[in-house]
Amino acid sequence: MSTIAVEIAIIGAGTIGLSFAALHLIKDPSCNVTIFDTRADLREYVQRHLPGYLVEADRDSCLSRLSFASKLEKAVQDATIVQEQGPENPEFKMSLWPQIEQLAPKDALFWSSTSGIPASVQSRDMKDKSRLVVVHPYNPPHIMPLLEIVPSPHTSQEVIDRTLEYWRKLGRTPVLLKKECTGFVANRLAFALFREACSLVSQGVVDAQELDEIVQASMGPRWTVAGPFKSYHAGGGEGGLTSFMGKIGGTVQNCWDSSDSDVRAHDVKVGADWQHAVCRQTEQAYGVVDTNERDEKTRRVLKAVTDS
Amino acid sequence: MSTIAVEIAIIGAGTIGLSFAALHLIKDPSCNVTIFDTRADLREYVQRHLPGYLVEADRDSCLSRLSFASKLEKAVQDATIVQEQGPENPEFKMSLWPQIEQLAPKDALFWSSTSGIPASVQSRDMKDKSRLVVVHPYNPPHIMPLLEIVPSPHTSQEVIDRTLEYWRKLGRTPVLLKKECTGFVANRLAFALFREACSLVSQGVVDAQELDEIVQASMGPRWTVAGPFKSYHAGGGEGGLTSFMGKIGGTVQNCWDSSDSDVRAHDVKVGADWQHAVCRQTEQAYGVVDTNERDEKTRRVLKAVTDS
Repeated sequence: MSTIAVEIAIIGAGTIGLSFAALHLIKDPSCNVTIFDTRADLREYVQRHLPGYLVEADRDSCLSRLSFASKLEKAVQDATIVQEQGPENPEFKMSLWPQIEQLAPKDALFWSSTSGIPASVQSRDMKDKSRLVVVHPYNPPHIMPLLEIVPSPHTSQEVIDRTLEYWRKLGRTPVLLKKECTGFVANRLAFALFREACSLVSQGVVDAQELDEIVQASMGPRWTVAGPFKSYHAGGGEGGLTSFMGKIGGTVQNCWDSSDSDVRAHDVKVGADWQHAVCRQTEQAYGVVDTNERDEKTRRVLKAVTDS
Repeated sequence: MSTIAVEIAIIGAGTIGLSFAALHLIKDPSCNVTIFDTRADLREYVQRHLPGYLVEADRDSCLSRLSFASKLEKAVQDATIVQEQGPENPEFKMSLWPQIEQLAPKDALFWSSTSGIPASVQSRDMKDKSRLVVVHPYNPPHIMPLLEIVPSPHTSQEVIDRTLEYWRKLGRTPVLLKKECTGFVANRLAFALFREACSLVSQGVVDAQELDEIVQASMGPRWTVAGPFKSYHAGGGEGGLTSFMGKIGGTVQNCWDSSDSDVRAHDVKVGADWQHAVCRQTEQAYGVVDTNERDEKTRRVLKAVTDS
């Protein structure tokens, strides 16, 4: 009996909560998961929606290790890990963690899935701020390998190490950020490209669907295999990224600077006039997206890049 | 005898020229390719390097349809398509096209692979500027499906239509840009993300290799399957992109605006101090990249997303 089963408390039964619940249940066949949410129909709701996340898994085994809690105490009292995906509201999170801290075992890990409220803010009223770390997924986490691990300056090294170790054991890709920053890294990168995309569509260079086709047939597959630094480093041949910047740097700077446009990317602001037109184009192109098909393809792509 | 074999003249035997030569030879088993270059060892050079581009193809068939020309006239006199990838130098290209125009058949298509010199500049001294269009690949073109088709305001609709038709017949993804713009679309998008990447690495949030891991485990596979507009549209659920922007717009704008950093992306300039450190990190992480391995994985990823 040297191994004690991991007990995971999932706080919040939204899509991210269910996706994380599925991920734990599928990847660690010995863990137990308890889902806490204040909704009255919690059990019914989860039993209706969770099976959709358990594709290619042993559903019976997964569901047999799942339980429900309508009281926070019951969810966290035996937890090894408490994983929170409640409302994206600083007050909610600041009031939640001190309660959890009182109710959960002394060595339980505390993880927040927030996409924007740093652990340094969330932990403000905790007795022991060293226990909390952000574990930010790229949605949906049961498919996408990335987890951004974002400690506050108070988070202990032990909490960081145990968090990284857990996710590596599950075969995911946890990446530790050395500093808290607005939006963390993945969304900042994606939003930078998205801003340029909105600018180009607003200028009428291509429409939204054509822009998507461009990305799907170029950067998407390239960056699945080698990120931007490795890609441009390869592009420079034996001289690497230094050589690439020497040869192409002028073009890069011209693209960054170019004001040959009606709408420069740096002038694109959320909520301004361009947004309505871009949203309408996207709606007309795609209607409601079939995310099951998307996720199925994504699984195959990830398998193709992992298989050697 | 209703079908006449396509005769392709490749101008410039660099890596892009060889990759395009391989693409035509592999995808159209009836075409013939003539490679023109001023290098003295042209035949020897191509015969040494081209087979590396003919993976999974019938090499003997491909090589049997290949010939060489050390004079421009010989290369283009019977061409259906003249595809140029010479030096990225406006004067070179401006002087080349009027010569080709005199030597090639009247209905031959003229394509430039330039990544930055628009057709409106290249065609300045042509008698008939309507014949030239930019066909910008995402490297290497024998692997990556994208071709940005960028006409000048003079390019005829017939030239555009025949160009799109050719690439669609070969199973590639040609996307027509409605306006010339600096860097075209794919590179502008990639460089926008790259700027944010350089900023985050310069701030020490993550190092270059960690940043690549983040992209490879998130946006790469996601955008292989669904570009940024479709992805965020799906992220908004039934309300689509409009709903996504309503919910997440504040975070997006915060990421665009955030000045909680030492080095804002908008302040990153090519050639400034950050560049040396970022190049060194990348060099230390990767040494010389094995592009064969990268291309092999990319093939599998593209196959995974195409297979239904």
